[in-house]
Amino acid sequence: MENIINIAKNAKNAYLKMMNLSSNLKNQALIEIAKKLEEKKLEIFEANKKDLELAQGLLEKNEINQATFNRLKLDENKMRDMISGLYDLVELEDVVNKTVWEKELDEGLVLKKITTPIGVIGVIFEARPDCLVQISSLIIKSGNAVILKGGRECENTNRKIFEVINCALNEVQNFPKNVVNLIFSREDVKNLLDLDEYINLIIPRGSNALVKFIQENTKIPVLGHASGICHIFVDESADKNCACEIIKDAKTQYPSACNAVETLLIHQNFEFKNELIEYLKAQEIEIIENPQNFDKEYGDKILAVKIVENIDCAIEHINKFGSGHTDSILSNNQENIEKFMNYVDSSSVFANCSTRFSDGFRYGFGAEVGISTNKTHARGPVGLEGLTIYKYKLFGSNNTVAPYAKGEKKFTHKFL
Amino acid sequence: MENIINIAKNAKNAYLKMMNLSSNLKNQALIEIAKKLEEKKLEIFEANKKDLELAQGLLEKNEINQATFNRLKLDENKMRDMISGLYDLVELEDVVNKTVWEKELDEGLVLKKITTPIGVIGVIFEARPDCLVQISSLIIKSGNAVILKGGRECENTNRKIFEVINCALNEVQNFPKNVVNLIFSREDVKNLLDLDEYINLIIPRGSNALVKFIQENTKIPVLGHASGICHIFVDESADKNCACEIIKDAKTQYPSACNAVETLLIHQNFEFKNELIEYLKAQEIEIIENPQNFDKEYGDKILAVKIVENIDCAIEHINKFGSGHTDSILSNNQENIEKFMNYVDSSSVFANCSTRFSDGFRYGFGAEVGISTNKTHARGPVGLEGLTIYKYKLFGSNNTVAPYAKGEKKFTHKFL
Repeated sequence: MENIINIAKNAKNAYLKMMNLSSNLKNQALIEIAKKLEEKKLEIFEANKKDLELAQGLLEKNEINQATFNRLKLDENKMRDMISGLYDLVELEDVVNKTVWEKELDEGLVLKKITTPIGVIGVIFEARPDCLVQISSLIIKSGNAVILKGGRECENTNRKIFEVINCALNEVQNFPKNVVNLIFSREDVKNLLDLDEYINLIIPRGSNALVKFIQENTKIPVLGHASGICHIFVDESADKNCACEIIKDAKTQYPSACNAVETLLIHQNFEFKNELIEYLKAQEIEIIENPQNFDKEYGDKILAVKIVENIDCAIEHINKFGSGHTDSILSNNQENIEKFMNYVDSSSVFANCSTRFSDGFRYGFGAEVGISTNKTHARGPVGLEGLTIYKYKLFGSNNTVAPYAKGEKKFTHKFL
Repeated sequence: MENIINIAKNAKNAYLKMMNLSSNLKNQALIEIAKKLEEKKLEIFEANKKDLELAQGLLEKNEINQATFNRLKLDENKMRDMISGLYDLVELEDVVNKTVWEKELDEGLVLKKITTPIGVIGVIFEARPDCLVQISSLIIKSGNAVILKGGRECENTNRKIFEVINCALNEVQNFPKNVVNLIFSREDVKNLLDLDEYINLIIPRGSNALVKFIQENTKIPVLGHASGICHIFVDESADKNCACEIIKDAKTQYPSACNAVETLLIHQNFEFKNELIEYLKAQEIEIIENPQNFDKEYGDKILAVKIVENIDCAIEHINKFGSGHTDSILSNNQENIEKFMNYVDSSSVFANCSTRFSDGFRYGFGAEVGISTNKTHARGPVGLEGLTIYKYKLFGSNNTVAPYAKGEKKFTHKFL
């Protein structure tokens, strides 16, 4: 416990410096990391090889599946993406210390709303070693500090990348120490969840079980989504071919993604219901009509199907069984499209396109912290902005409240 | 438990309708409440009299203090303020269903970020019956639904006002049922805190003990502040007279307010230290030099004082002992003012004015949900905007992700 408290305290001190670091210095840090990754990539591949050897054993014993194994693997392509992602982030505008608005409360009394970073972010991620670089760089760009815990399956790779990142940061003059921190044991994670005094936000990236465990075991705000029960509603007026193509894409293009469709709701008067189902079956999608559980995330080429009486029933079903992630209507009726998008209470509501577009890169955020189904702070794909909050700065000229309370003075409240 | 679950379910259904209610209908509801309050004010005063009689007994037995007793009392003045507050709110622009931005992801694929209400808000407040009207009206204007629990000391008044509000809402055609809900027992509050399936945000308004209890007993996001340890730092260059006036205002104008100053930090080289202290003592302020606890909120005419070596020590002290509420620097040194405002990590940072300005009405928000010391969602005085979030609407023309994943198509990401 003492160890993790020290890490958290140091991270908080790092944040207090990061909070006002110049864009220039933050970008220099990102460029330095990119350079060092390039320079040390053979060492990183070497470390990754160790993890893969161990993972191979787990794969053979069926303790992990092929998808997890693939995510563990760092190759030249992933390394290139990681590095180019860093340069992309350099190009993005700084998100903190921006004036949102400026308002004169009265003569000589000016209020400014200014964006700021949040503080110390705890990020718990599974497998994927590229996550470490991605999250660390977002944290740096947004002026926060981070405590990361990666999956055990890529501990060697994570240690190496962590070493490379901090080696890079050390070379940037005046860059604060302890901005990027890595912890390893499950015990440390459990302790981390208690440190609401130092940690301001937890972002879990991994299985539903991981997210649920974290949500249930901390008072710190958690940003993320436990499940992705996404729906497509095929309205009466939907075009048959478009429905076939979009549903195929939403289910098969990456079936284990959280934005893949899980439930298909079909209007009872949709003419081509049988052809649509036959087409999907031909794409090797297993169709389960009227399953007992409509709140199950298959994460595989399995699709629950329900016939609904009308659009209102579809909306009601989604608001009841959905996870507030992403839901799409296929329709040629403008009124129904509008109704669906207004009344489905999800973070992303789509018309006539695949649920798979629900993603920070596709939304043009440049980078993604994760997808949130929260109803506060940040919702949907979360980019750099989700790592910021704001503060109020009030510039006075020796003003007291008493004369306003007595009615001797009045506020002007003029936006500047 | 069953009762409270039903209330929560009904509130959620009400929210699903409120979410898209026209500004016109919401404003009609506010006007109707204002009218009914005027119409039924004698009945409300009558109910309030009952509470005051009971409170008189508690006051005599020292179970409540005079300040609480005064807050319980509803008179013509408070009634007039409540009613005019409703008309003020009608004049404010609607905060939901606004387009934040619109972006073309590619030809025929347009993403819109739209403001929305949050959902069902639980509000637990102590004493002050005017709170019921204020919160209900903010909830209506922002398109949410609410479950309120008021203090036991004003149960009769609350019941009556609740009846008047719902009587008014019933008269507005097409206004959803169950938008404003009231619960009474502590048991109900405990149960409410478990209903994270239905309740999206809890706002406690009351004592530090109440806020802490709630923060520690729910997984639902809590918006508020447990304590208000506000500081004033008197820099070396501060003007003596201004320091006297501002500190007097910040400590005595309303000593029990959360934005009243609790700790005075004085630069060791500030010439007029002794005169300042003498002046404050003459204002009947009790001065405690170097107390053991710098994290105590006195809420009275008591002021902790510490001499600090320099501005960095002042900033460090505030970031360590402060509650992130409101802190002010008195200085004529621009560089120090900037440093203080940048490095003090509080929701409101002031220069050369009283901490008492930290308030939604004074900030020009028209109305206030409360003051938040959170680092996520909403911070500082929270107005209507704090009761909103956003959703993404993606308007497609039969788009699938596959061609982008394969590199056959590229996103344009053009703001419209």
